[in-house]
Amino acid sequence: MSIEFPRITEVRLTPILIADPPLLNRSGVHQPYTPRLIVEVETDGGVTGLGETYGDTVYLDRARDLSRDLIGRSIGAVNTITGIGRSASALLDAEPAASGLRGALTTDKVRLSVLSAFEVAVFDALGRHVGVPVHTLLGGKVRDAVDYSGYLFYKWAEHPLAEAEPDDWGAALDPDGVVRQARKFLAHGGFGSLKLKGGVMPPEEEIAAVRALAAEFPGVPLRLDPNGAWSLETSVRVAEQLGDLLEYLEDPTTALDDLAELHRRTGIPLATNMVVTALDEVKPAFDRDAVQIVLSDHHYWGGLQATRDLAAVCRAYAKGMSMHSNTHLGISLAAMTHVAATVAELGYACDTHYPWQSEDVLTERLTFRDGAVTVPETPGLGVDLDREALTRFHERWKAMPHYHVRDDVAAMRRAGIKASAP
Amino acid sequence: MSIEFPRITEVRLTPILIADPPLLNRSGVHQPYTPRLIVEVETDGGVTGLGETYGDTVYLDRARDLSRDLIGRSIGAVNTITGIGRSASALLDAEPAASGLRGALTTDKVRLSVLSAFEVAVFDALGRHVGVPVHTLLGGKVRDAVDYSGYLFYKWAEHPLAEAEPDDWGAALDPDGVVRQARKFLAHGGFGSLKLKGGVMPPEEEIAAVRALAAEFPGVPLRLDPNGAWSLETSVRVAEQLGDLLEYLEDPTTALDDLAELHRRTGIPLATNMVVTALDEVKPAFDRDAVQIVLSDHHYWGGLQATRDLAAVCRAYAKGMSMHSNTHLGISLAAMTHVAATVAELGYACDTHYPWQSEDVLTERLTFRDGAVTVPETPGLGVDLDREALTRFHERWKAMPHYHVRDDVAAMRRAGIKASAP
Repeated sequence: MSIEFPRITEVRLTPILIADPPLLNRSGVHQPYTPRLIVEVETDGGVTGLGETYGDTVYLDRARDLSRDLIGRSIGAVNTITGIGRSASALLDAEPAASGLRGALTTDKVRLSVLSAFEVAVFDALGRHVGVPVHTLLGGKVRDAVDYSGYLFYKWAEHPLAEAEPDDWGAALDPDGVVRQARKFLAHGGFGSLKLKGGVMPPEEEIAAVRALAAEFPGVPLRLDPNGAWSLETSVRVAEQLGDLLEYLEDPTTALDDLAELHRRTGIPLATNMVVTALDEVKPAFDRDAVQIVLSDHHYWGGLQATRDLAAVCRAYAKGMSMHSNTHLGISLAAMTHVAATVAELGYACDTHYPWQSEDVLTERLTFRDGAVTVPETPGLGVDLDREALTRFHERWKAMPHYHVRDDVAAMRRAGIKASAP
Repeated sequence: MSIEFPRITEVRLTPILIADPPLLNRSGVHQPYTPRLIVEVETDGGVTGLGETYGDTVYLDRARDLSRDLIGRSIGAVNTITGIGRSASALLDAEPAASGLRGALTTDKVRLSVLSAFEVAVFDALGRHVGVPVHTLLGGKVRDAVDYSGYLFYKWAEHPLAEAEPDDWGAALDPDGVVRQARKFLAHGGFGSLKLKGGVMPPEEEIAAVRALAAEFPGVPLRLDPNGAWSLETSVRVAEQLGDLLEYLEDPTTALDDLAELHRRTGIPLATNMVVTALDEVKPAFDRDAVQIVLSDHHYWGGLQATRDLAAVCRAYAKGMSMHSNTHLGISLAAMTHVAATVAELGYACDTHYPWQSEDVLTERLTFRDGAVTVPETPGLGVDLDREALTRFHERWKAMPHYHVRDDVAAMRRAGIKASAP
């Protein structure tokens, strides 16, 4: 009575474009449309599974390549997925990619981001097959709801391009605008902590914005993330001025020795999703005590089990763990929620861009209540695909090839040209 | 259609004594009978689960205490088990306990060893409930069989005590005896690698034994483990003489700085189950490069997930991983096999004492074929309890209170008195 699991018969890859508001960051501005890749794994057992990852061309190409290796694989063999396509890692781009600002982009980072969607889809299928939520396949939840932070951005009122979708968030370009946005966030989902994406305005303006948030929302944990925009001296200055107000400072600068010195001099806890984004980056950063909190991201690290693995490494080295987010839809939010529910050490609210996404490919959006997402208790991820929406966003992808690669720098350049046009 | 899992209604703890041959180690000699604790978890869903751990009084007392906290818990909530009873760790005994030679014994090590049996039992029950093997609940196997090493011991022909069970392994007190034992091991299970428990004879005799094994079994990976018996200088001398013959040298000495210097001077890979036996021991040892291979043990580390966590830490720090064993029965061998099957990085054959155990509490013993145990593919652990055998070994436990604590030193002392008696 040996148990056989369904085998994978097809992997459907659907690149889509989803509307994204004009959120500002160090690199530039989010494009009006961001590419994402939706993965559907079909099996000979009748169950299917859903996954989601970056949709930029380099990821899509790699997904097409790697997906062939899934065919015929048992959905019980999740642990074999991480090994697919492993080879020596090569540098693709020394600049942090806009889609992630995750340090230099390598072939292995792309591979792991693709495999993360495969792993999530196989977990979804396996959960549906045996009739348990994905978190049960990760050892079970230790909490019933996962806290997320309200993720504030400097933002234009609208994209300066006719083809963009409008949004109703308004502009946020000064402390008042940031506080207004935060109020809207709290009304939207009752978030219990707030993060401001910095590196956009001069440091003094961002310091003023954090102070305005602290005055308006006393007791609410605050974070600031300039994506490595600052020098060591600027970072020290900001840390000295905001040290008492911030839960942690995220990626103020990027050199490990500078981060270590910053922490030594100011004592401020430093979080990162830029200098520790893969296993081989752990030791150099931990050896120097350059970071105190690692921001996990199941896309980066290669899946939900890899996220739990990172938690184990953090535990062994007495590091904190929180969770990073980039523009994503509900499939990834569900996956993030399942794995976050299983990690006892995840002591901080997770990041998510989800409130910024007005569009989704789910039949029912996930919702925030008191800043938290309730851990799904139905089989698999607990979300279902709206095929009509998927088709619509895929048609958009076909119609707009100029957005197939997310490039916040180019988007800003285009906006500048537009703005200076007569 | 929210999924509910069965809840735990009872935890049955049965201490037993099992026959153990007169195996010699640094501390002394194995007692004729070794205490083990069999854990049965019952649920309101009709499924039960099995676990096994150390049976010494300190573990039994703690198990009785901690088991109360399992009652009412969902079997889907495996990840909550590790947290049971967590408090500041206190030193119980600065001497390495004979049952494990795992460094100083602390309250937390005892707690984790108890919880490991609870976790395995809950995984067994959960696997039976949803109809999948335990390895599926750990992400699935990456291999169909798990390699074990033949674990050779210096050994008397018999215990010098009338109440002991006889065994048919014969004596092994010199190189010839060790080679004879190894031949028997290979005939028994076709083991593809061999480990000799050292620290018993003068180093030169153990060097001669390893050389005799290498001559008799060319190409078979060999290991030597003196349980920290040697000085740095002795360790260097052994490493220089056996460096080319050993796959790794295990715990030659116990000071981290000495181990680091030994590795630096000789280049020999060092494995340990004595200086890295808990999470807080990882960093000091890795910082010094005092060990290159960590021997996992799901009893020590607190369960099967903790074993996978340790694998993640080893991966991040480019350390090898193998698996330690102490006297154990088939429930633990099944658990070891399930978790080992899921860890890609487990690149060495695992240790096991199982061939030395003529008794078991299973309806059917696990078997070695080409040195490997086939990964069970039936629900749960894939083993069943022989209740009649359990009762018999528990009656023995009740009848022989002088064996309730495994004490190899006392056993050797008793043997010495016996031997010198007129």
